Amino acid sequence: MSYQIGLDLGGTNIKGGLLNSKAEVLAKRSIATEADQGPAHVMDRMAELSRTLAEEAGVQMTEISAVGVGTPGPTDAECAVVLGAPNLKGWVNIPLRDELKARLDRPIRVFNDANVAAYGEFWTGAGEEASDMILLTLGTGVGGGIIIAGELFAGAHNAGTELGHMIMQINGRPCPCGQLGCLEQYASANAIARDAQRLLDEGRSSQLPANPTSKDVFEAAQQGDAVSVEVLDTFADYLGVACVNLVRIFDPQVIVLGGGVVAAGATLTDRVRKVFDAQTWTIRPEQVVLKLASLGNDAGFIGAAGLVAPK
Amino acid sequence: MSYQIGLDLGGTNIKGGLLNSKAEVLAKRSIATEADQGPAHVMDRMAELSRTLAEEAGVQMTEISAVGVGTPGPTDAECAVVLGAPNLKGWVNIPLRDELKARLDRPIRVFNDANVAAYGEFWTGAGEEASDMILLTLGTGVGGGIIIAGELFAGAHNAGTELGHMIMQINGRPCPCGQLGCLEQYASANAIARDAQRLLDEGRSSQLPANPTSKDVFEAAQQGDAVSVEVLDTFADYLGVACVNLVRIFDPQVIVLGGGVVAAGATLTDRVRKVFDAQTWTIRPEQVVLKLASLGNDAGFIGAAGLVAPK
Repeated sequence: MSYQIGLDLGGTNIKGGLLNSKAEVLAKRSIATEADQGPAHVMDRMAELSRTLAEEAGVQMTEISAVGVGTPGPTDAECAVVLGAPNLKGWVNIPLRDELKARLDRPIRVFNDANVAAYGEFWTGAGEEASDMILLTLGTGVGGGIIIAGELFAGAHNAGTELGHMIMQINGRPCPCGQLGCLEQYASANAIARDAQRLLDEGRSSQLPANPTSKDVFEAAQQGDAVSVEVLDTFADYLGVACVNLVRIFDPQVIVLGGGVVAAGATLTDRVRKVFDAQTWTIRPEQVVLKLASLGNDAGFIGAAGLVAPK
Repeated sequence: MSYQIGLDLGGTNIKGGLLNSKAEVLAKRSIATEADQGPAHVMDRMAELSRTLAEEAGVQMTEISAVGVGTPGPTDAECAVVLGAPNLKGWVNIPLRDELKARLDRPIRVFNDANVAAYGEFWTGAGEEASDMILLTLGTGVGGGIIIAGELFAGAHNAGTELGHMIMQINGRPCPCGQLGCLEQYASANAIARDAQRLLDEGRSSQLPANPTSKDVFEAAQQGDAVSVEVLDTFADYLGVACVNLVRIFDPQVIVLGGGVVAAGATLTDRVRKVFDAQTWTIRPEQVVLKLASLGNDAGFIGAAGLVAPK
């Protein structure tokens, strides 16, 4: 038996857990990131959190075989340096791996946050039975993580699996990334809220409150609100076709839907499955299962620990 | 040093080669498939071709460590049975692996034809310098093959990398596969020819002959023919965006363009690259190279041999 710490760095909170190599969570804790105080302070807090977790689990830091970290920004190809992170003030070219190693004297590995969440769901969540799984996290944007034959896939330069930036509509909606028509402009929680507000702004009659959330839209759609149904139809059209494409490309056993919109439950997967079944080919029956993520906010730190656990 | 035979089964010809494990072609030959005489006859011919290749190379069949075969139809998940092949009469549920093993008494492995071509280009063609490579073959349809970290990727049930059936346009052009808006309806050699004929049928003035081929369209576009330029702009728009999506997903070092349209040369890659550069994101500079395939019709048998060669 060995012990690993997983940390999931976010703009608001740092979530962490201490797990053994059987994926049992021995301690977990979430603390404020305090990103406004700059990268060095945040990295001090990550180290402090790690030591607290060890203490709570009754494990010496020297017994921790490795620390895995998920970060909300792209890293260099060696996964040592965080190149930038929109939600973390001052995080430009921060050598996170070496800085944490200096603070904790343990082996450190750094990953993308969507990738650690995907590995978490694969290791001990909704994809537990699968060897080949894709996670789409539908939140502010759309993140993606891919597991192939039990291994995290990240691309030749660690810049792949940007599934929210698949172009779904040529010359479509502008995305802050610089592309037009990206999936996340149609199929994120933010896109749902924005689309609903746009229809309200056009004077459409609806039971929705002003500035609706994606949760409001799912609830109102359940009650037959026409604006909400229209918004979710667009959402499901793009997400369903994105799932068709991912199956054509990857042929996974499971696609897991995670992120904020998971609160909508089966109504989400039902809508997406309906589009998927209508849009997919007739050559062979599809074997893929569409499921909701099951680990919630713990997926990231669990996956970060899992990725550094001995196989 | 060991010896392998690669066979590339097509509707018209069976191409084969005998290679050593350094990728040197010691013998190669193409014979008519004679598909109209049924699967047993075709498999007899594949065995006969293998023995002829061994004789020409001066190698005993017992010295052949394995035979790799590319087939133009989907196989079962174990790659033993060809489920169907539109261009091969009677090929429904044909146990190709075991039938060839009975005829040749050598280990046999069966692959998809686009996959063997991709592996050929990776092993000793346009992708030779890369570890992560994608091949798009632009012919009657659009085929795809993906190499990840030096290994052929085929999906959890051997049904992935159907890159011609990525949906590029929601509710777009109908595809015989049953989907709407598949890449191959916009970016195959057939699509180019069909689009040009459609514009001619509309009475558009053009230097193109009736029933133009994709080659005619590329040549006329070079000379400024407006219809041909319009057709190739559509082709490049879809193919360029497909390449953006493949880079977002896979982050490969190289995308290789193969198939009939490769005859167009640099004008093809230039057009696609222009769209790619205009449509891709601005977050990070792109590192991917777009190249033409270099092995021509030999890619399939070379890759089939390479896939069964000792690593």
